[in-house]
Amino acid sequence: MITSTANAKVKHLANLKRKRKLRDEEGVFLVEGIRMFRETPKMLLKEVYASESFYKKERRMTDEALKGSGAYLEILSDTVFGYVSDTKTPQGILCVVKQLDYRLEEAAAGRAAHLIVLNRLQDPGNLGTILRTAEGAGVTGILLDQECVDIYNPKTIRSTMGSIYRMPFYYSQDLKKDIGRLKDKGICIYAAHLNGRQDYDEADYTKPCAFLIGNEGNGLDEEIAQQADTYIKIPMKGRVESLNAAIASSVLMFEAARQRRHM
Amino acid sequence: MITSTANAKVKHLANLKRKRKLRDEEGVFLVEGIRMFRETPKMLLKEVYASESFYKKERRMTDEALKGSGAYLEILSDTVFGYVSDTKTPQGILCVVKQLDYRLEEAAAGRAAHLIVLNRLQDPGNLGTILRTAEGAGVTGILLDQECVDIYNPKTIRSTMGSIYRMPFYYSQDLKKDIGRLKDKGICIYAAHLNGRQDYDEADYTKPCAFLIGNEGNGLDEEIAQQADTYIKIPMKGRVESLNAAIASSVLMFEAARQRRHM
Repeated sequence: MITSTANAKVKHLANLKRKRKLRDEEGVFLVEGIRMFRETPKMLLKEVYASESFYKKERRMTDEALKGSGAYLEILSDTVFGYVSDTKTPQGILCVVKQLDYRLEEAAAGRAAHLIVLNRLQDPGNLGTILRTAEGAGVTGILLDQECVDIYNPKTIRSTMGSIYRMPFYYSQDLKKDIGRLKDKGICIYAAHLNGRQDYDEADYTKPCAFLIGNEGNGLDEEIAQQADTYIKIPMKGRVESLNAAIASSVLMFEAARQRRHM
Repeated sequence: MITSTANAKVKHLANLKRKRKLRDEEGVFLVEGIRMFRETPKMLLKEVYASESFYKKERRMTDEALKGSGAYLEILSDTVFGYVSDTKTPQGILCVVKQLDYRLEEAAAGRAAHLIVLNRLQDPGNLGTILRTAEGAGVTGILLDQECVDIYNPKTIRSTMGSIYRMPFYYSQDLKKDIGRLKDKGICIYAAHLNGRQDYDEADYTKPCAFLIGNEGNGLDEEIAQQADTYIKIPMKGRVESLNAAIASSVLMFEAARQRRHM
């Protein structure tokens, strides 16, 4: 059992939690909590850390879940676990997991493409919620640009509730160009935009489509927005100027899902 | 200028930030940031605190906004301001504002009622986002039960982006009974429920309606759910079991808004 925060493995975990660059260099990310642990595909599991008191209670479940994974288990004292955990009240289990790797062709695959394209999205919780909601709405893939928050941010991972393992995504090096590729594939591009003249529910999303979603405070880059075939708006009552990015995405995704159910 | 965190006013602000009971006893809440400050109706403004460096830059705007409000202004050193602020990077302005007070009849007023009823909602950010989205979707009022998070929680207030001042709400002492009153007024009650058999977009929300939304982890109290006329569900793809409470509410609110636009 590791009982000191000066332990090299513990220091390394704390760095993985904080540093996107280190996560990317090693091609891993951190996953916390029982539910996320059980949803992690065994082939992606590299290392598992349990707190002393968690392992006392959940030894059988933990050992069972580890079987055939090739991952090694390390026990941490509760204090040390608290130190590496990203939550205030840690459940007591944390894993180092291999990053998922999709190509654009995979994230934008399928004849009935229903894509979300994120431009400069900054809030980790919003991103995680968008992934979770996207899976529920039947979205087929997510594109992000380099200015978006890291999808492997611990808070994002937690908010996905496991959808991180099931929703194909792709970090674009050149979003403008990649949107062009989507258009070449016959995918219609809709930008959620304050200047939108068409109400979002008046467009036809039963065809292959992609929704461009911008930054929480500033919306879409003008250059990205110009790639859209159509600007749409969510009509707003009262004095509300815009919706939270995760909320706006959800309204659009579920409108597409609704139309596709009634095809 | 106040330069010590031991100052009685500063201590009191720190307590107002943390303690719901104290806020309720004094009938006030805290509001932070320029935007929220400017949206606060003057008649509700009691006290305004600005950081030294904020006041240096924004003296004219601050003095202008205070005119005719009867509120007094106090300058805090930047360090002391950081201490009373609820954010990591404070904008430098914080107000003590009178609580809003609605009766059930006000929160449920109007011939075209479109209500959100919240049962045990726990996340302050979710509650604020629901208020903001509700205003945008044309919701006419919000009911909450005693087990919901405090609407005057600083994080909730921040997430409302000012909708707190425009969305009527009512903390019910007896939610079951009050839902009964809504039914007596001819309002149709829909429960978002995992056992729902009707897809949410197959019901008619052009008539007066209310949506029951439950706790983030556990959904609706059974006793509350039984008050509903209809259980509805948001059909889900993939392995997603449920949506975030703010997301589920938003999908329902905007479906009602959509139907009402096409009446």
